[in-house]
Amino acid sequence: MRLALFDKGRLGVVDGDDLVDVTERLADRGTPGPAGALHHYIETTVRDGAVALDLTGLPRVPLTEVDLEAPLPRPGKIIGAPVNYLDHKAEMEYTTSIADLGVFLKANSSVIGPGQDVLLPYTDKRTDQEGELGVVIGRTARHVSADKALDHVFGYTCVLDITVRSGEDRSTRKSFDTFTPLGPWVVTADDIADPDTLGLRCDVGGETRQRTTTADLIFGVRELIAYTSSVMTLHPGDVIATGTPAGVGPLSHGDRIVLDIEQVGRLEVGVDGSRALPYAHRPGSRVR
Amino acid sequence: MRLALFDKGRLGVVDGDDLVDVTERLADRGTPGPAGALHHYIETTVRDGAVALDLTGLPRVPLTEVDLEAPLPRPGKIIGAPVNYLDHKAEMEYTTSIADLGVFLKANSSVIGPGQDVLLPYTDKRTDQEGELGVVIGRTARHVSADKALDHVFGYTCVLDITVRSGEDRSTRKSFDTFTPLGPWVVTADDIADPDTLGLRCDVGGETRQRTTTADLIFGVRELIAYTSSVMTLHPGDVIATGTPAGVGPLSHGDRIVLDIEQVGRLEVGVDGSRALPYAHRPGSRVR
Repeated sequence: MRLALFDKGRLGVVDGDDLVDVTERLADRGTPGPAGALHHYIETTVRDGAVALDLTGLPRVPLTEVDLEAPLPRPGKIIGAPVNYLDHKAEMEYTTSIADLGVFLKANSSVIGPGQDVLLPYTDKRTDQEGELGVVIGRTARHVSADKALDHVFGYTCVLDITVRSGEDRSTRKSFDTFTPLGPWVVTADDIADPDTLGLRCDVGGETRQRTTTADLIFGVRELIAYTSSVMTLHPGDVIATGTPAGVGPLSHGDRIVLDIEQVGRLEVGVDGSRALPYAHRPGSRVR
Repeated sequence: MRLALFDKGRLGVVDGDDLVDVTERLADRGTPGPAGALHHYIETTVRDGAVALDLTGLPRVPLTEVDLEAPLPRPGKIIGAPVNYLDHKAEMEYTTSIADLGVFLKANSSVIGPGQDVLLPYTDKRTDQEGELGVVIGRTARHVSADKALDHVFGYTCVLDITVRSGEDRSTRKSFDTFTPLGPWVVTADDIADPDTLGLRCDVGGETRQRTTTADLIFGVRELIAYTSSVMTLHPGDVIATGTPAGVGPLSHGDRIVLDIEQVGRLEVGVDGSRALPYAHRPGSRVR
């Protein structure tokens, strides 16, 4: 099942070429109308079991006529996996990988949805695209083993981990507003036989920059959940961006970024550099 | 006004030596009972203006008979300020400061309240206390100037930024469950004439390790909010830990940590190393 948000937080199920509005059908289960709808659905599903979503008689609209929003507009946590593909490790000349670096966090205020624009912050610092498989947690996970890890997954989505190449902590370089495009929907876990065999392609400005399969992850989805849950408790609605393969590169004003993940979906956003400022103009740059 | 949580999320106001239960009084303003009470109060106050809290006739209990909880059990974001005191920069032999490093993020799942225990994760990696002034955001802040920054502050609290000294990303080393003791309450901003002149002391095992004043911050509270809001939008209930002075040091099983900040409060927690494991036993340590 593919679950999408639209029309300021209404929850829809993708059915063929249509989006079916299930917001009202879920209202009697305590879903708080158009606000945090998918997040609440995830929590309800974990608490009460899967919701049988009978789509007959519900309002539907062609997908082409809907502006989809980020399915999780402000996740509890967004966790990133640094250097989790060997080819990206090589291209960046890193000497360490996720096994040494652990995970990082992105601000939940950085999420945007399909069709929105990534805002470049600086005129004179490179800002890169990083296309990644996103894992959405369904069930609280604390010290889970890799064997049991997938039991804690609600579903999967496409994530772009936009990153400035400068000297700050990863959390800063990856947390500017608009730096976490997410979507176009969440595919529930029962639709993905194995998250570690998915083809991934990321195009920028019409050229393919990244092409891999999640089989090349250093920490696969199971190991990544096991490791992360050994550090921090994962809650329903948390998102793990699983890391990016080789092919990261600079974004320019007017670029379109298209991330396509097999069985998951196709996420497209724009790039807007019109409000970028010189790096030296950032607040505090003259303080030492 | 000092606002505290107790009894599984009830909201109280400290009045002399008593805690007055204001949960019901706020219920008609849509406060969702004992769940996210302070967070909701902050949002309501921003939306509708300050709530006149008449304490007459409300149930009260002596503070000594109450177990206080973390006032914000799961903030939207927890932002940290690396190397924001010159004396801490010197003791760690760092060559950069916050002006180069920006800010980092801690997992909101790492919060504990007064009287709870910090759990040491590893038997053979040093885990340190870092005592800090915490700033609680009241009003959404995006690209605010230092001059206007304090208009966006709801209040202040004590924060311990517990940190493992190992090689991982800061977000990992600082985000283990229990690594962000917070409290004992939030003092509203109107009670603090100037957040940049507060005495701070942190004792571990009965010995004073850290003693400073927030006047020695490299980025003061105003500059820190201005800088952070130039990267990421700050929302009501977000917490900024302003950084730690010299005197960080290793924690041991059975230690008591006491953080005392002038005009703000005194936060005390324990240390439990009984579940610590060898670093080499962490998940994924054998993957390269």
